[in-house]
Amino acid sequence: MTGFVSLVGAGPGDPELLTLKAVRRLRAAHLVLYDALVGPELIAFAPSAQRFCVGKRAGRKSISQSTIERLMIRGAQRGKRVVRLKCGDPFILSRGGEEALALRDAGVSFEVVPGVSTAVSAPALAGIPVTYRGIASGFVVVSGHAETAFGPLLDAILPDTATIIVLMGIASRGVLAARLIRRGWRPETPAAVVLAASTPAMRRWSGRLDELGHAPLEAGGGAPGTIVIGDVVGLQALVAGARADTLTASAIAIGR
Amino acid sequence: MTGFVSLVGAGPGDPELLTLKAVRRLRAAHLVLYDALVGPELIAFAPSAQRFCVGKRAGRKSISQSTIERLMIRGAQRGKRVVRLKCGDPFILSRGGEEALALRDAGVSFEVVPGVSTAVSAPALAGIPVTYRGIASGFVVVSGHAETAFGPLLDAILPDTATIIVLMGIASRGVLAARLIRRGWRPETPAAVVLAASTPAMRRWSGRLDELGHAPLEAGGGAPGTIVIGDVVGLQALVAGARADTLTASAIAIGR
Repeated sequence: MTGFVSLVGAGPGDPELLTLKAVRRLRAAHLVLYDALVGPELIAFAPSAQRFCVGKRAGRKSISQSTIERLMIRGAQRGKRVVRLKCGDPFILSRGGEEALALRDAGVSFEVVPGVSTAVSAPALAGIPVTYRGIASGFVVVSGHAETAFGPLLDAILPDTATIIVLMGIASRGVLAARLIRRGWRPETPAAVVLAASTPAMRRWSGRLDELGHAPLEAGGGAPGTIVIGDVVGLQALVAGARADTLTASAIAIGR
Repeated sequence: MTGFVSLVGAGPGDPELLTLKAVRRLRAAHLVLYDALVGPELIAFAPSAQRFCVGKRAGRKSISQSTIERLMIRGAQRGKRVVRLKCGDPFILSRGGEEALALRDAGVSFEVVPGVSTAVSAPALAGIPVTYRGIASGFVVVSGHAETAFGPLLDAILPDTATIIVLMGIASRGVLAARLIRRGWRPETPAAVVLAASTPAMRRWSGRLDELGHAPLEAGGGAPGTIVIGDVVGLQALVAGARADTLTASAIAIGR
């Protein structure tokens, strides 16, 4: 028997937003290594696998990246079907690329199973289309984790040319907003924050770019947050208004 | 009975990359309105629904956007569960936002079911992580459909600051590459094109930015193409090498 690793995207949180392929891989898995923010309902698709949380959570000691890679490689070398379950899409800002190269260098067979990205689905579920004809014909996704990384990237984008989406940027949102305004973005540019998108705990804030730093977001128990900046956020009220009513209607209409 | 519309992302093409929620909505649908590039295997999830292709295909007369919106609205008003099945994610460059607002304005209940975006999954399946620590901490997604739209947006991004992903840009790839080089991007910047990602017909080209315009891509029968530009494409060989072997191993290992 040959071991094998699947780098699988878990989507934004709702188990219903897993792909059929992700579910199939979880059901067949011997070993599942999952991020801290992957919920128990998702892990439940692999009841007979060994399951380890290898995620990094703010403020907690976490397993090192090299240990995660070693666990995947050792599992596959022992003939196991390993699923590395990562939030959102495995190749967006989550070291999935590094894990792929580590597997490759170790001569381990692997595949990538793309997932629904939080970067796009969190705004969508809050009623914000990241592109809209005549308003934004493109969008930018950046990590808000370290200013040394996002600073130069944000500086490189001319004001008001695209929707900006920031992942892992809740803590740095003030710095980020100030930097954009300094760079020439209008202080009144619409901005939104979506927390715990697609889960029952989902909530959103919306306002202006110059209010983003002071947006009253509770710590949120480590719920992932997505920041959206740009005129498409102005469409939110319209769409979100409809959605708030209709999600319930939906649940009734299709008998869930 | 209340009608209801679901704007559903179909993912990049592989039926296995549909979400559980998309499948559930298709199974419960009375009426499915789908894009031209959505394959028959996906439509097969809704065997008992009325199914209409409303997609736009290059060179063919197509149903107008307003007709699509009218069909959705009329269906819902007649009490039907309508699925509007769109390639990739419904809110990325596909007028999903406009459809949402049209439904909202008509007072029709609706929801958005995010999908696996082609913008990120096509590169991933070709072994290209769109972000990679130390190489690209962010990425930009633009439409290559009209230079009036993508031109100013590409001009607004300083060279070598992020991975650029272009959807619907196969026909304009030469214009696009020339514009980036004029703007200061290195002619030798790695570039790739992924056609029909995730399907058995998937193929890829990779080379340099200054070769992109002459990349020998057959018309491809309307297969959607994704262009990726940036140093992360240089990682491709490594990862893709592993993937080419392992996809087969995968299929065997998990008994599909």
